[in-house]
Amino acid sequence: METQPLTSKEQMFVSTDVMLRHWQGHRNLTRRVIEAFPEDKLFSHSIGGMRPFAHMVMEMIDIAEPGVKSLATGNWEKVEEFDHTKTMPQTKEGLLERWDKVTALIDKTWPTIAPERFQKVEIAFGQYENANYDTLFYFIDNEIHHRAQGYVYLRSLGIAPPFFWER
Amino acid sequence: METQPLTSKEQMFVSTDVMLRHWQGHRNLTRRVIEAFPEDKLFSHSIGGMRPFAHMVMEMIDIAEPGVKSLATGNWEKVEEFDHTKTMPQTKEGLLERWDKVTALIDKTWPTIAPERFQKVEIAFGQYENANYDTLFYFIDNEIHHRAQGYVYLRSLGIAPPFFWER
Repeated sequence: METQPLTSKEQMFVSTDVMLRHWQGHRNLTRRVIEAFPEDKLFSHSIGGMRPFAHMVMEMIDIAEPGVKSLATGNWEKVEEFDHTKTMPQTKEGLLERWDKVTALIDKTWPTIAPERFQKVEIAFGQYENANYDTLFYFIDNEIHHRAQGYVYLRSLGIAPPFFWER
Repeated sequence: METQPLTSKEQMFVSTDVMLRHWQGHRNLTRRVIEAFPEDKLFSHSIGGMRPFAHMVMEMIDIAEPGVKSLATGNWEKVEEFDHTKTMPQTKEGLLERWDKVTALIDKTWPTIAPERFQKVEIAFGQYENANYDTLFYFIDNEIHHRAQGYVYLRSLGIAPPFFWER
């Protein structure tokens, strides 16, 4: 049997290995942005009616934690909306602890994701129908997006945020 | 000859085809964020000493335009620093025109990039040594990052930005 040349849909841009490193690199930077906030401002500072950064961080946690499990299993639970009022830690230390638990969960769960699962189309969180690679891109892009808003919050407080390119 | 199972470094997360769509999807959203700015605020509004959004947009252009060409050819020109003072359009319409030219350039150039080039390590812009997939991730992540700062600018002006999930 002759080997067929790959079609452009099959040409790899990036491997699953690299993608884990990419995701965790971003999470590492976000952790340092959390650390850069004075504790009170983390939970209170706002511009233009936007949420305090701690709430954005809880959204990232509430996406990544069930998200990585569902990427592995294909079982997506419906999330009507993210309600952090009861589950959000009330201290910076508590928030960082939650963050670190998710980091460890991702490292532990990732090797159990069969690579072909990323090409499957599923209904993420019971609502968002996409290929799983796009779903994971969304998790990361959403984190970059809200973290960058945290950068503006920090700048508006006169605090220099971590360098964007350090992961 | 038996087929060897792929190692995790060879397992595809995402294809080159999807990556072009992903990049242009983000660029389409950024275009709508540019459009959402009142013309004067685009070139003047600032928070915490940060650059006006038009300057951030010029950075995106100054990365993507030579960047996509270099991804195709492997010829990276050294960029000491991006100086927009002479090249930046002075109107929103002019900026959008520049943006659209780069969009067309990316669509035209992308099919000329041999897929295996993304796995090569090169010194982007004569300074940043990375696998080309990481270099392109950086282009996109940097755009998401600064666009999100544009979101805060818009909110601080009382303007609702486009939905993040619409591409």
